[in-house]
Amino acid sequence: MRTDSQQHPYRATPAAPTGRVPRSRIADRYPTRSSACVEPGGRVRWIDRPHSVVWSEGRDGAADGPLSAGELRGHEEKGYTVVPGLLSPAEVQQYWSELERLTGDPALVEDHRVVREPGSGAIRSIFEVHRISGMISGLARDPRVLGAARQILGSDVYIHQSRINYMPGFEGNGFYWHSDFETWHAEDGLPTPRAVSLSIALTDNYPFNGGLMVMPGSHRHFVPGQGETPSDNHRRSLVMQNVGVPGHDDVTELAAEYGIDQFTGAAGAGLWFDSNIMHGSGNNITPYPRSNIFLVFNSVDNAPVDPFEAEAPRPAHIAARDTTPIPRRGAR
Amino acid sequence: MRTDSQQHPYRATPAAPTGRVPRSRIADRYPTRSSACVEPGGRVRWIDRPHSVVWSEGRDGAADGPLSAGELRGHEEKGYTVVPGLLSPAEVQQYWSELERLTGDPALVEDHRVVREPGSGAIRSIFEVHRISGMISGLARDPRVLGAARQILGSDVYIHQSRINYMPGFEGNGFYWHSDFETWHAEDGLPTPRAVSLSIALTDNYPFNGGLMVMPGSHRHFVPGQGETPSDNHRRSLVMQNVGVPGHDDVTELAAEYGIDQFTGAAGAGLWFDSNIMHGSGNNITPYPRSNIFLVFNSVDNAPVDPFEAEAPRPAHIAARDTTPIPRRGAR
Repeated sequence: MRTDSQQHPYRATPAAPTGRVPRSRIADRYPTRSSACVEPGGRVRWIDRPHSVVWSEGRDGAADGPLSAGELRGHEEKGYTVVPGLLSPAEVQQYWSELERLTGDPALVEDHRVVREPGSGAIRSIFEVHRISGMISGLARDPRVLGAARQILGSDVYIHQSRINYMPGFEGNGFYWHSDFETWHAEDGLPTPRAVSLSIALTDNYPFNGGLMVMPGSHRHFVPGQGETPSDNHRRSLVMQNVGVPGHDDVTELAAEYGIDQFTGAAGAGLWFDSNIMHGSGNNITPYPRSNIFLVFNSVDNAPVDPFEAEAPRPAHIAARDTTPIPRRGAR
Repeated sequence: MRTDSQQHPYRATPAAPTGRVPRSRIADRYPTRSSACVEPGGRVRWIDRPHSVVWSEGRDGAADGPLSAGELRGHEEKGYTVVPGLLSPAEVQQYWSELERLTGDPALVEDHRVVREPGSGAIRSIFEVHRISGMISGLARDPRVLGAARQILGSDVYIHQSRINYMPGFEGNGFYWHSDFETWHAEDGLPTPRAVSLSIALTDNYPFNGGLMVMPGSHRHFVPGQGETPSDNHRRSLVMQNVGVPGHDDVTELAAEYGIDQFTGAAGAGLWFDSNIMHGSGNNITPYPRSNIFLVFNSVDNAPVDPFEAEAPRPAHIAARDTTPIPRRGAR
């Protein structure tokens, strides 16, 4: 496992005060949302990723966590790893009950971390849920989860974002293609894509109820996003992403090169996916709801600096500024 | 094969003149879009289908066309039949070229049978295409197609509706759950669901680019639609179906009972589906377009009468009033 935190060129900034902070002045290896990303002919300049995907190395990396050396190689190559049965059926039931408990918790009625449907007021997501729910906090420390995150990122890790999503049947609108890292870099100041997401399905994922689609291999290219970041973009982008998304030409080219895989399977399955993989989801007209727990791990060696393309970082419940590592249970 | 056209109780009406025509006064076995369909508690009254699904019988039916006795039994039970490779790759190429030729045909620029995208003006569908294209007309007479339609409907048949659909990538909005027969009965006056549709894929259908979803077995229930039919409803319903669709409770109950199957597979595959099967499609955010040829066959013994729930029948290019049967090639 690499221990290069001392040599890491980036310095974390403290949590942003209210008001503007200067945009990052450190070297930007992933420029986005700028006319400089577009060639004279209109073509968007892709960046070949200079950074690793899996940061732990060889036998040592594989020995230290739940993912096998083969799984880690697959993750490096495809940018994602499916773990069927990451949670047992009984655990799925427990987390489902926790989700139900949280959506009915009167203490959360006015909580700014709760996102509701515009019409019905029904809860759609709860952010920073690992600081709200002891069960979710425990899940982030579970060796099946934390161990894999540490294998992939090759360092101590902390949670950049966590949430539970509750998507009822008939109503899921889906998300257009995007790289999470594009936003986390532009708006949160993560210098590099040394971050990985885990989505755990609490409902069965069919091919037709809006399950996540990924383009395996796309994580090796950084496709600059379109447009410039308006202030308070996160208030809109959580509902409908308009800024920072790739153009149709770029998505077409990526799909022709890499194809599309879809995350399907029984409740309890986990999907680890690289922060820079191109992904999206269709809508859901079926009656089958789709709920999941979503945890984003970032390397402590990739702590956020000032945003690269935004006036101020997003709020801490959407993008953490506290990089205190998650301790391992019974750390050796 | 039944030859009960002489005894059939319904009489076809001539093509509707402009202006109102009286709603059908014949016995309505499939009432819809009316408060009479709703029980006092608010529950929609489903109707158990009194009519057959496959009308040709036993050995005779199977001997007279391309579908095997087993396929016909499956069609009766599930309400749909997939025929992989109904068109060869070379034929797919020919029909694709025909589609391209038609979308560029200057003679069709002002044609009322052409439906265009509101924004770009790009052609989305061409109706009554079997009267526009000799190739499509020939396809409707092809023994692989006409023979199967005659097997399923057990009589001479004609085309109630035909169209080609061109859905570019990124833009497909999908269609909410519905029974085609509900509309054909309410707005076109088809007395019974003795009609069958054929969708032939001209592009590969993936699970994630908006392919048709069906509920196998749902065709045995008629689920009355909600609302009442506004005049000129077809102008809206071709873009977004709002009237006559089932409620969420009904769709949920059907899905719990029957599940969902999805039509996927290589270009050239054909999907025969009963006019009353509950079906829908999700949107398509992928770059993969989805084009198909769509032919609806109706039994000449199920000729349209006055609409059951509309002031006037829809235009003839959307719902034919001419029930002249399609002749078999080299009819014996």
